[in-house]
Amino acid sequence: MRRTNIPDAAIRRLPVYLRVVSDLAAADVPIVSSAELAEKTGLSPEQIRKDLAYFGAFGTRGVGYDTAMLSRRIARILGLHRGVKAALVGFGHLGYALARYSLTQHKDIVIAAIFDVDPEKVGQEILGVRVQHVSEMVETCRQQGVKIGIITVPASSAQQTAELLKAGGVEAILNFAPAKLNVDGVFVQNIDLTIELQSLAYYTSASEDDTAEE
Amino acid sequence: MRRTNIPDAAIRRLPVYLRVVSDLAAADVPIVSSAELAEKTGLSPEQIRKDLAYFGAFGTRGVGYDTAMLSRRIARILGLHRGVKAALVGFGHLGYALARYSLTQHKDIVIAAIFDVDPEKVGQEILGVRVQHVSEMVETCRQQGVKIGIITVPASSAQQTAELLKAGGVEAILNFAPAKLNVDGVFVQNIDLTIELQSLAYYTSASEDDTAEE
Repeated sequence: MRRTNIPDAAIRRLPVYLRVVSDLAAADVPIVSSAELAEKTGLSPEQIRKDLAYFGAFGTRGVGYDTAMLSRRIARILGLHRGVKAALVGFGHLGYALARYSLTQHKDIVIAAIFDVDPEKVGQEILGVRVQHVSEMVETCRQQGVKIGIITVPASSAQQTAELLKAGGVEAILNFAPAKLNVDGVFVQNIDLTIELQSLAYYTSASEDDTAEE
Repeated sequence: MRRTNIPDAAIRRLPVYLRVVSDLAAADVPIVSSAELAEKTGLSPEQIRKDLAYFGAFGTRGVGYDTAMLSRRIARILGLHRGVKAALVGFGHLGYALARYSLTQHKDIVIAAIFDVDPEKVGQEILGVRVQHVSEMVETCRQQGVKIGIITVPASSAQQTAELLKAGGVEAILNFAPAKLNVDGVFVQNIDLTIELQSLAYYTSASEDDTAEE
């Protein structure tokens, strides 16, 4: 659980730093400056120094950050050092794509269980994970120690799914359903394609930024 | 193109307001207060009043906002009133899921073209849209007046895809590839599953928010 007051926006940038510094550490680059981090992430050096200072990584003045140490530290802050288990609910096209991507790309966050209501999907297997019926969700999540839920069910069943995940011990949810979830004590991050696309439209010439009339 | 200084964060909330006020307008609820909007969106009434004031929607003190007018106004600011065309590049599992979702759910943002490099995918059709080869991207986007690009190709070809979309006249990109895109003059919004999941892990008990040691 979060124990300090690092802003959510800074937390969302930590994985970006993690990717860059782990790549550098893997390439035997021992030190990186905030200016180099800025170039590789598109963020300002000031923002980077401020973000990293939140958890006591100050670097060495005029030298930079130890890439291996920074990588270990960010991983530990995020809880990735011992692996985090996730459950995916909804094995439609999006669920399939996410499961496949995650199971091949992620080592630190593992999809340990997949659930669906469709009898034709239950029993299917993807990269060693068998799709189970949602009625098994609470027990399986508890047994497996699942901490993260990924919701790709229709909007109408998203709230019920979130409640079952919470009952199963899930503490954070990535919600792809276009529905607002109410689950006290569970951190919810929404990804809503409609909202993403509609806000993008503002940055095109289709937009009429008319503040005066009507 | 953006002509005023509405912060990006406020722009990203406009589609949320739009959804709520259009639903209310459709249900013949003529007026909504900022307190009611707050309850339905999970945002604070102060935030809502501030956001809506950016584009001159002040509501009527003690009464609220005209739902039909607010809905029309937000749609026009976002450019949704006359429809915005989008192109999807990468017809893998994620691309298929996004195309299917968007083509069935969206009226104001229309996927007008889909591209892939795989000869087996080129020529396939989904809900009336035929998958074309990426070599046709620039010309098709120009002809169709595509303004938004959705990238679901592997990270290695994301930058090249973004450049082709820009050459085709695209002004904003939703990027699902785990790669940083450099395309001057094009607004890029990244959705990176790895980053979403890794930051979620922070909000679970797997996280060790240790600011002191190492």
